[in-house]
Amino acid sequence: MESPYDFATGNTNPETFPTDALVAAAEAAIPDVARDLNIYPGKLGHPGLRSLMAEREQDREGVAVDPEHLVLTNGSMQAVTLVAEALCQPGDRVVMEQSNYPGTINAYRALGIEMVGVPLDGHGMRIDALAETMKRLHDEGSPPKFIYTLATYQNPTGAMMPRSRRLELLEVAHDYDAIVVEDNCYGDVHFEGDKPPAFYALDDSPQQIYVCSLSKIFAPGVRLGYLYARPPMLDRLLARRHDAGPNTLSAAIMTRYLGGQLWAHCDRANAALKDKRDAMLSALEAHLGNSCSWSHPVGGLFIWVRLPENIDLDALEAAAAQQDVYFARGANFQLGNESVPYLRLAFGFPAVKDITEGIRRLGESVDQVTA
Amino acid sequence: MESPYDFATGNTNPETFPTDALVAAAEAAIPDVARDLNIYPGKLGHPGLRSLMAEREQDREGVAVDPEHLVLTNGSMQAVTLVAEALCQPGDRVVMEQSNYPGTINAYRALGIEMVGVPLDGHGMRIDALAETMKRLHDEGSPPKFIYTLATYQNPTGAMMPRSRRLELLEVAHDYDAIVVEDNCYGDVHFEGDKPPAFYALDDSPQQIYVCSLSKIFAPGVRLGYLYARPPMLDRLLARRHDAGPNTLSAAIMTRYLGGQLWAHCDRANAALKDKRDAMLSALEAHLGNSCSWSHPVGGLFIWVRLPENIDLDALEAAAAQQDVYFARGANFQLGNESVPYLRLAFGFPAVKDITEGIRRLGESVDQVTA
Repeated sequence: MESPYDFATGNTNPETFPTDALVAAAEAAIPDVARDLNIYPGKLGHPGLRSLMAEREQDREGVAVDPEHLVLTNGSMQAVTLVAEALCQPGDRVVMEQSNYPGTINAYRALGIEMVGVPLDGHGMRIDALAETMKRLHDEGSPPKFIYTLATYQNPTGAMMPRSRRLELLEVAHDYDAIVVEDNCYGDVHFEGDKPPAFYALDDSPQQIYVCSLSKIFAPGVRLGYLYARPPMLDRLLARRHDAGPNTLSAAIMTRYLGGQLWAHCDRANAALKDKRDAMLSALEAHLGNSCSWSHPVGGLFIWVRLPENIDLDALEAAAAQQDVYFARGANFQLGNESVPYLRLAFGFPAVKDITEGIRRLGESVDQVTA
Repeated sequence: MESPYDFATGNTNPETFPTDALVAAAEAAIPDVARDLNIYPGKLGHPGLRSLMAEREQDREGVAVDPEHLVLTNGSMQAVTLVAEALCQPGDRVVMEQSNYPGTINAYRALGIEMVGVPLDGHGMRIDALAETMKRLHDEGSPPKFIYTLATYQNPTGAMMPRSRRLELLEVAHDYDAIVVEDNCYGDVHFEGDKPPAFYALDDSPQQIYVCSLSKIFAPGVRLGYLYARPPMLDRLLARRHDAGPNTLSAAIMTRYLGGQLWAHCDRANAALKDKRDAMLSALEAHLGNSCSWSHPVGGLFIWVRLPENIDLDALEAAAAQQDVYFARGANFQLGNESVPYLRLAFGFPAVKDITEGIRRLGESVDQVTA
């Protein structure tokens, strides 16, 4: 599906991709790492990238992060899956945002996990609903193995959970001695506003597990994510890793490229992504303003669009495809795949002019289907 | 543990590592793949490397291999683990060689799999014992989910299963409608003698699953392996993959490096590895000839050494470590970690002179402990 109007997947911006600098990084990194490439990487992976990602965390969160407690993974999805593999048996429960990333939903479903959804509002997971859910599961004698939250630029809603609500979430977690798994894969894809702290920076208990990535600030094709957890939790997670370790070649090249310019790189990438977000918001206003409403995300790669209540989604999908426009249906993001009058638009990859034209076409499709 | 006499791990030969050519490959590959790096790789991965690995299989086996049925993985261990995750539930049984790779043993144990061992002789898994085992498990109402075999340069024994025995194995598998998982991770690390066909080349049933790797013919740090299976088996395996796909950067660079010179690369690497194997065999003859016996592998990276029957392995390990010599204990390779008077020596990474000196020291350690 090669369309200029493909808004279905959370890919990154090829226009700001630093091809020449990445070539230079490879030229410098490969001779340095040549000997180490012949050695198995161990369960933690390339020490240089672990140090750099520990710095990234320390710079953002202002707390010390030990690179020996940071585990490189094949993208953050390996980490999200590994956590569940390590902590759950089939039939176990996990509490998570009611609307969520289909990759996580599919992974946890395949593992036989019962996903218990908590509704969201504009600030992320609702704490009143979380508390009720935790009480109910506890009363039923089957508390969740962990609370999974994507509190920063939540996928698909774009919601950012403020600091105060994070503290409330931790209070509920403490009441039930629950493990909190924070997926911060969109962390640092930041356009404006506050950067509330990560949960591990608010709670130094070993019940905190944190997941992050290079897929969104750099590119998914380098397949580098990481998880951060302290012993003994760290050891529980590592005991379930059986892929003989993460990618040394990719890690060495990325360490060389990002070293000394991580935040400058993020600033460049984010400025261009913000323009794309703005172009999509303007086009939505111009072409869907009379029929739909949508999120105004301050980071991340997605806009979550609420469609007219009784719209025929199959018809909309067909009409849009007729115009070469693609999106992700809201049902894909529901824990039970329930049909909802929503769609998710990804703005990272397409060019600004294609965003403008594609959303115009999408508006036509909505008008056509609702006429 | 940085010792010149580290014979514990199956690392590759840094002396033949093509640093300059890999830099050149990265310089050419990165601009070509820049746009694609911004896109999620899908469950199969980089089409170029899949085509090249399909050619590798076709060249070796003489049968057509469809690149659309070949799945790139994070090293072959991700494939070995994925197969069990997709086909087994905790408590299920798998039949496999009695002496096996610790990574596989640990992975399958963590998955709750009951590993049922089949004894080996100099030609690999014994078919009489396999047939008895299959009958017993069948009679017990709990047949294995698959037969896992590392028939080429078996780890740790180095055994090569001849064609005739492969056909016998397939006959037993057919009798019980069993899935065969061939792990050919040492395939093409070939020094001399026959190259019997892979199981999939002897049996075109969709019960065949094949696993291979770049870790041994190139280097483990590129973390690239693959599995090959045809639908509907392929779909069963892909349904359990949840890491958002394999590494595009690493695959693109390797495709550029190996393209057009895969077999020339293997010839160069294997010639140097053969010298190391020969150096280790000579040193064993010189320094352990009066007390031990060992395998004479025609490929792969290991020699399997039988020690005097009642040797104190803790004492030997300590005496060797005193001399900065490291090896892998035989018990690590037993499905139940039973103590056995064996050790495994890896000859890929150390220099020839260090192999000679290290084995001399090992001989001293054996003499000291058995004195």
